[in-house]
Amino acid sequence: MTLDQLNALEPDSFAAALGDVFEYGTWIARAAAAGRPFATVAALHDGMIDILRYAPRDRQVEFLRGHPELGSKVAREGDLTDASRAEQGQLGLDRLSDDQFVLFKDLNTAYRKKFPFPFIICVRRHTRDSILDRFARRLDHDVDAELAAALEEIGHITRLRLVDRIDGPGKPKTTGQLTTHVLDTARGRPAAGVAITLHEVGANARGVLAQAVTNADGRTDAPLIASMPLRIGTYELQFAIGDYFTRIAPAAAEQAFLDVVPVRFAITEPEGHYHVPLLASPWSYTTYRGS
Amino acid sequence: MTLDQLNALEPDSFAAALGDVFEYGTWIARAAAAGRPFATVAALHDGMIDILRYAPRDRQVEFLRGHPELGSKVAREGDLTDASRAEQGQLGLDRLSDDQFVLFKDLNTAYRKKFPFPFIICVRRHTRDSILDRFARRLDHDVDAELAAALEEIGHITRLRLVDRIDGPGKPKTTGQLTTHVLDTARGRPAAGVAITLHEVGANARGVLAQAVTNADGRTDAPLIASMPLRIGTYELQFAIGDYFTRIAPAAAEQAFLDVVPVRFAITEPEGHYHVPLLASPWSYTTYRGS
Amino acid sequence: MTLDQLNALEPDSFAAALGDVFEYGTWIARAAAAGRPFATVAALHDGMIDILRYAPRDRQVEFLRGHPELGSKVAREGDLTDASRAEQGQLGLDRLSDDQFVLFKDLNTAYRKKFPFPFIICVRRHTRDSILDRFARRLDHDVDAELAAALEEIGHITRLRLVDRIDGPGKPKTTGQLTTHVLDTARGRPAAGVAITLHEVGANARGVLAQAVTNADGRTDAPLIASMPLRIGTYELQFAIGDYFTRIAPAAAEQAFLDVVPVRFAITEPEGHYHVPLLASPWSYTTYRGS
Amino acid sequence: MTLDQLNALEPDSFAAALGDVFEYGTWIARAAAAGRPFATVAALHDGMIDILRYAPRDRQVEFLRGHPELGSKVAREGDLTDASRAEQGQLGLDRLSDDQFVLFKDLNTAYRKKFPFPFIICVRRHTRDSILDRFARRLDHDVDAELAAALEEIGHITRLRLVDRIDGPGKPKTTGQLTTHVLDTARGRPAAGVAITLHEVGANARGVLAQAVTNADGRTDAPLIASMPLRIGTYELQFAIGDYFTRIAPAAAEQAFLDVVPVRFAITEPEGHYHVPLLASPWSYTTYRGS
Repeated sequence: MTLDQLNALEPDSFAAALGDVFEYGTWIARAAAAGRPFATVAALHDGMIDILRYAPRDRQVEFLRGHPELGSKVAREGDLTDASRAEQGQLGLDRLSDDQFVLFKDLNTAYRKKFPFPFIICVRRHTRDSILDRFARRLDHDVDAELAAALEEIGHITRLRLVDRIDGPGKPKTTGQLTTHVLDTARGRPAAGVAITLHEVGANARGVLAQAVTNADGRTDAPLIASMPLRIGTYELQFAIGDYFTRIAPAAAEQAFLDVVPVRFAITEPEGHYHVPLLASPWSYTTYRGS
Repeated sequence: MTLDQLNALEPDSFAAALGDVFEYGTWIARAAAAGRPFATVAALHDGMIDILRYAPRDRQVEFLRGHPELGSKVAREGDLTDASRAEQGQLGLDRLSDDQFVLFKDLNTAYRKKFPFPFIICVRRHTRDSILDRFARRLDHDVDAELAAALEEIGHITRLRLVDRIDGPGKPKTTGQLTTHVLDTARGRPAAGVAITLHEVGANARGVLAQAVTNADGRTDAPLIASMPLRIGTYELQFAIGDYFTRIAPAAAEQAFLDVVPVRFAITEPEGHYHVPLLASPWSYTTYRGS
Repeated sequence: MTLDQLNALEPDSFAAALGDVFEYGTWIARAAAAGRPFATVAALHDGMIDILRYAPRDRQVEFLRGHPELGSKVAREGDLTDASRAEQGQLGLDRLSDDQFVLFKDLNTAYRKKFPFPFIICVRRHTRDSILDRFARRLDHDVDAELAAALEEIGHITRLRLVDRIDGPGKPKTTGQLTTHVLDTARGRPAAGVAITLHEVGANARGVLAQAVTNADGRTDAPLIASMPLRIGTYELQFAIGDYFTRIAPAAAEQAFLDVVPVRFAITEPEGHYHVPLLASPWSYTTYRGS
Repeated sequence: MTLDQLNALEPDSFAAALGDVFEYGTWIARAAAAGRPFATVAALHDGMIDILRYAPRDRQVEFLRGHPELGSKVAREGDLTDASRAEQGQLGLDRLSDDQFVLFKDLNTAYRKKFPFPFIICVRRHTRDSILDRFARRLDHDVDAELAAALEEIGHITRLRLVDRIDGPGKPKTTGQLTTHVLDTARGRPAAGVAITLHEVGANARGVLAQAVTNADGRTDAPLIASMPLRIGTYELQFAIGDYFTRIAPAAAEQAFLDVVPVRFAITEPEGHYHVPLLASPWSYTTYRGS
């Protein structure tokens, strides 16, 4: 659906079209309809978020209560909206191991004791490890701080849903990018044909996320991650630089110092551009967050 | 025992004192006695090795046959000399898992089919992975090349045994050194208090080998490895640089790009000095084989 | 004029149109006319060069004789074709100091004694220093090698003239590019607002060639050199990184380690892309030929 | 003379022995005599400085007035103590060009108008450029701040004089050190045989200060500067890395990217250790303040 079409709908149709952007939140869409026409998708999102932000606190809490627990039994058995199911499913939160299920359950129990709504987080911007980290840290909040944190996450969740669904100008930024570049500093030219793998790292990591080989310019033909938020978490790029140097100088392979070079780094800005190059000789390398 | 004492012994006592430097090789020590006096420990070792090198091929093969199979059942059940047992024990070759035992057994079987002596390697200069790598590669040798390779390993084994046992001038180099240094390039000074761990990496690796914390000069108080050969293999230094930068600037921790920096490298020269420094800012680092 | 138009001209008009691409070389253009139509500008240039390459040696030498001496009195007083004047004028070879004039004169005299034609070099691909360097080195050639060297330079000269004059597909590459990029490794982001100057370095250098300030991406809005050959020579980029870091952290200025960072490098490929970035913290930097 | 001897002298002899450490300041030495015995040379210096620090302001100003103007006509004609002459002579402040003489004279005139004592600075810790810089900046002080600045410089001047003259334990640190190290990152080993020159840089710089060639460990046999304060100023190390790489791989010389690598840096801590290494391949290098 386009922004123009939304702007032209009857209020009820508008509310129906956008009702499930906010979980069980048709009332938000209905109220936001009065703010039309919206010039940009970002303005539409702001308009909807403002309804929630300026709603009475009771209403906000009631709204938050409409959300499923993360990784809970309920979530596993299917009481999710389709959007929630898709988002949680990508991280496998609906396919937790027994240990992980217990861990989530304990956190949920502690959270429920302290707060009058379930723990809400935009899973599309997180890895399992960063969700667990945030879960533990947010348990230290008082109720006001946690209400604010939950509403901020609602902003992230609904921004992503809206951008997925509505075509139009002025879409807010919801995607990040991870790119790399390999330079052979012993020869002063791009290192072509270097195999690269991208791994998620951590106790609950998902393993290999991407594989690529550098082209003649020392870059990968496509970004390693693009067109989606970069999940907050820890990653490792592994560059098979040893194979590259062995192809150039086979005789030196026996004495090779570097084989697979791991570069481990954290992503903290899901909508950022992370450029992580490698400048390598057979005996030395430099890496950095570039641009 | 000192070199001076050895030089002064009756030939029989000399042979008795050194007989087990070469596995069941008293005859070598006896023949070498004629070359005395030896001015240095290195000359003594060269003298003994020369007896073996210039012995008839039959004698050489017979000598090699006196050695146990690596990780074989025989080896497990105790038909080893004490020296062999100590050397193999350090790598746990006498405590192999069932899978590893089968792997070694298969390699030994293939080796025995092709060569008239067991596979010999100086285990104190190797990791399990590099032993398996050499085992597989040496199976491609013809008998002449493999006989030469085995005798070279005998040279390494006996050099180490001799240096352990005999005091005196001119000891041949049998030890390597692994050192590091951490520099904070954002502040232009040594990074003090950085926790460092050294890991062996690989399918059969032994795990964490050393732990240290950098001192005020950004170095560790002692080398990470010293006073022994550096085992040929793959290693990873892990520098907890994120904790260091967080202590200096706690506010930046939330956005930290680097936490634990892994530096993976191969050691190919057991008697070499490997200096592997890290020059790091919170967003960039350089590492290299230094001196 | 376009390649299409050239392909359609009468032979005499074609020769007239291109006669002065080769100095006093209308005969070359005339002969090349027979090879039409040319599909690309590169093919046109190859066609003309082939006429010269396959001409009898006497004809080649006679052709080379039609060229002025570099920096000679004759050259100063005006016996140059317009194209030669423009090319030499850019380096100031028609405005030499007395010392330089003597130097060129001596080299020309030595050259004339040894070779039956004047020293020819494509000045648009060179600095004064690299011209003097080549001049001295080519004096060591025998006549055959030097004839080949002179014809190769004729190829460079005429390729540039042709590309300037003729529009059409398939132009051969005659331009290089010099770019840079400044990254702040203490903050993990592009260094914006860094003043950069590009200098030619050497005994006969022309001084400051370009000035620029980095933009928000740490790059200059335009390449430092583009749309022309990069003159073979020695250059220095000077990055005012001290001013940049002082703006960010004024308190640290008193203890600043780096102020202007000079990066000196040679250009040897006039048609190449030289990307020379600077990765800098206040206490450390890395530079390299990138891509 | 030793500290022990000083501790044992009659007060008058003590004052006579140390009187000229403070310019025309026998009274300071006399008063400090009461504080004996001093356990260390540093304590002796502190004791003398304290006499001056706690003297009435009139007495301090009178003391400062006993000092010559820097680079003034008076200074040129010989009204200096021997110690002052030696210190100023090393920078050639008694051999100024006419322009520099005028510059110093104008600064002195402005200073004298504002402050009741001449400009005092420890010239052994400064270059001409840093003296001029400090001169201009200290003219902005009010009288109190400038009195404090002058007394701090007296502390530096007298510390150096005392350390030159008195043997004994606990000498305060008055010397710095400049060292370097060159590593060949294309080969993973020290770069031996690299010619290095150290230059002072700036409008009033003294030119080449040191020359050295790296040894087998990539270091210079002796520090580039040692056993004296490092003069505050701007320096450039020039590493002839191009010649080094050409010796290793002559064929690559024609395409060489790096020849002489200049590393320009400021020294701001005269008693510091500046270690400025170069990690270089033929196409890339890294430098930093190390330790």
